[in-house]
Amino acid sequence: MVRIGDQRAIWLDDDGWGVRVIDQRALPHAFRVLRLETAAEAAGAIREMAVRGAPLIGATGAYGVALAARADPADHALSDAENLLKDARPTGANLAWAVDRVIGAVGDLPPPRRAAAAYAEAARICEEDVAINRAIGEHGAELIAAAGERAGGRQPVEVLTHCNTGWLATTGRGTALAAVYEAAERGIQLHVWVTETRPREQGAGLTAWELGQAGVPFTVIVDGAAGHLLQRRRVDLVIVGTDRTSAAGDVANKIGTYPLALAARASEIPFYVAVPSPSIDWTIADGLAIPIEERDPAEVAAVSGLAPSGHVESVRLVPEGAPAANWAFDVTPAGLVSGLITERGVARATRSGLGALFPEKTPAGARIQA
Amino acid sequence: MVRIGDQRAIWLDDDGWGVRVIDQRALPHAFRVLRLETAAEAAGAIREMAVRGAPLIGATGAYGVALAARADPADHALSDAENLLKDARPTGANLAWAVDRVIGAVGDLPPPRRAAAAYAEAARICEEDVAINRAIGEHGAELIAAAGERAGGRQPVEVLTHCNTGWLATTGRGTALAAVYEAAERGIQLHVWVTETRPREQGAGLTAWELGQAGVPFTVIVDGAAGHLLQRRRVDLVIVGTDRTSAAGDVANKIGTYPLALAARASEIPFYVAVPSPSIDWTIADGLAIPIEERDPAEVAAVSGLAPSGHVESVRLVPEGAPAANWAFDVTPAGLVSGLITERGVARATRSGLGALFPEKTPAGARIQA
Repeated sequence: MVRIGDQRAIWLDDDGWGVRVIDQRALPHAFRVLRLETAAEAAGAIREMAVRGAPLIGATGAYGVALAARADPADHALSDAENLLKDARPTGANLAWAVDRVIGAVGDLPPPRRAAAAYAEAARICEEDVAINRAIGEHGAELIAAAGERAGGRQPVEVLTHCNTGWLATTGRGTALAAVYEAAERGIQLHVWVTETRPREQGAGLTAWELGQAGVPFTVIVDGAAGHLLQRRRVDLVIVGTDRTSAAGDVANKIGTYPLALAARASEIPFYVAVPSPSIDWTIADGLAIPIEERDPAEVAAVSGLAPSGHVESVRLVPEGAPAANWAFDVTPAGLVSGLITERGVARATRSGLGALFPEKTPAGARIQA
Repeated sequence: MVRIGDQRAIWLDDDGWGVRVIDQRALPHAFRVLRLETAAEAAGAIREMAVRGAPLIGATGAYGVALAARADPADHALSDAENLLKDARPTGANLAWAVDRVIGAVGDLPPPRRAAAAYAEAARICEEDVAINRAIGEHGAELIAAAGERAGGRQPVEVLTHCNTGWLATTGRGTALAAVYEAAERGIQLHVWVTETRPREQGAGLTAWELGQAGVPFTVIVDGAAGHLLQRRRVDLVIVGTDRTSAAGDVANKIGTYPLALAARASEIPFYVAVPSPSIDWTIADGLAIPIEERDPAEVAAVSGLAPSGHVESVRLVPEGAPAANWAFDVTPAGLVSGLITERGVARATRSGLGALFPEKTPAGARIQA
């Protein structure tokens, strides 16, 4: 098995200022690296999903502010970059959080010192994400081990996941997939059911690619087949990621997550969500209030893949001109979530459950601290 | 609006013996008609899904026996054809039912009279299906009207469906989609959410094509988005078809149906199944005992569509060699079903509910009749 951990989805170029990211639109058929030189290019990479995954989007946004500060550290220029970057995608919590953090770290500095400080803060966000990934992986691996024990020691432990939550989605080794990698490294035999994740195929294209490289056994299924597998108890636990989780534990994640949670609950199979704390929106209690991005219907009407010619082509699936709609996320109510795997441990998916792990973030906790 | 009803998915060729079917693999990008001349060709068309939809598969199987009897009416030849045809696809109930019916109608005849009798019985099966379609459409339209009234008369009534259950799936105007057509003809304003139905895109490719031709407004969504729409109450009722329904009302249907039923139940939105009685398997009570076809994983690993070149191409979605699995159906437990729309009316999804409409098919009913 390839040891996961040396690979990164974002890094600084050799010149120390250009930002390199893997162009995830080209995977799994080609490995291409982009160089981002401006905040507009960073925003474009986020919007067009060259980079995706809430933590990686956050990191890209953070470096986007640094690129802006390098080009023009004046207040108005940073303000423009802030708006441009935050508007790139609306649902994930990490983007606004990371942009605000870098802006906050440099706003009080004299303009000539802002660029260096912004790069430093972006790097700190990335390093913190690496540590968060590692901790989530460890807590998640315990849950995988426990699921294996509940299955009477039968191996492989059967994990089902949705979308991509691996090292391509973060700056470290991932969130839900970090748990898979950690469990595999601990010697637990695993098999992962990978939902293809229409419309953009992050499961079929990215998770399958990551797991194949890591040597973790997996099988790709269509999104609609997960219910069947859960009903027939071919799954020991479900672990997914999140783009934004409410203070009460409601989980916005890739479209199609909510039906997985319903099917897991119907068959009493644990449904866990890996939640780095920057994905928690402490200002929203009711997950149904999380804004749900609607993307270009063309993503539904067509799909890209490798043609027999050896070229990647987009093929249209619907009749010419047929209308389509493309909500990118759905919300799984906290009541369907068995637990939230944070870097501080596994929380019950309730306000008090999260508050117990993050007392400084909740009003009651703040009072206790005061 | 195009009046639906003149179009047929299967018919006898001008020579009176060759069987014409629409090659549904080519839709929506091309309209091609195949001519079937042997039972083996009929079985191949079923297996390769040139024809699909449980009632149309049944009709094709019936004509397959007729083609076999025309070629060689001897007992052993008919027996070979029977096995070949029944083995073409395992889950749908109509195929074995229709083949058995034609075999039964000709088995006692002297061989020279078998071919004509087989064609006549196949034609009867088709005509009965047309009548069943019409009745199901009428009963289903009442449910759509009722859903509109429950919505306070708000129009359009929002219907969600899965896979294809229109005139391409039957010999008449369809099952679940027949209800949509009938409601539209009664002047009810409708909008249909069409799930694309991976892996073979019968929603995006066939239902969208049918509805576009009929002038019924629709929007294509990915399968995983249906839960979101149901949760947000953007749907007034769900109507799907079935490939085999158990005597207790459990519904085997296209993979991805079960999660729809769970999501409908979670939001208390009616979930109806259009069930022609030949799709009911009176010998199976527990739907989980219905055999679930596993098809070629290549159907999951790749998808066909119209390339910019104007050619239909199959593009690979997964990394080279990535394993995939392809269950074609799932089973929705009767408890999630609001009602079974049969040609005799809407039954509760229970043994007694079905028995009340089909007393001659159930032991208790048989006793009452005796």
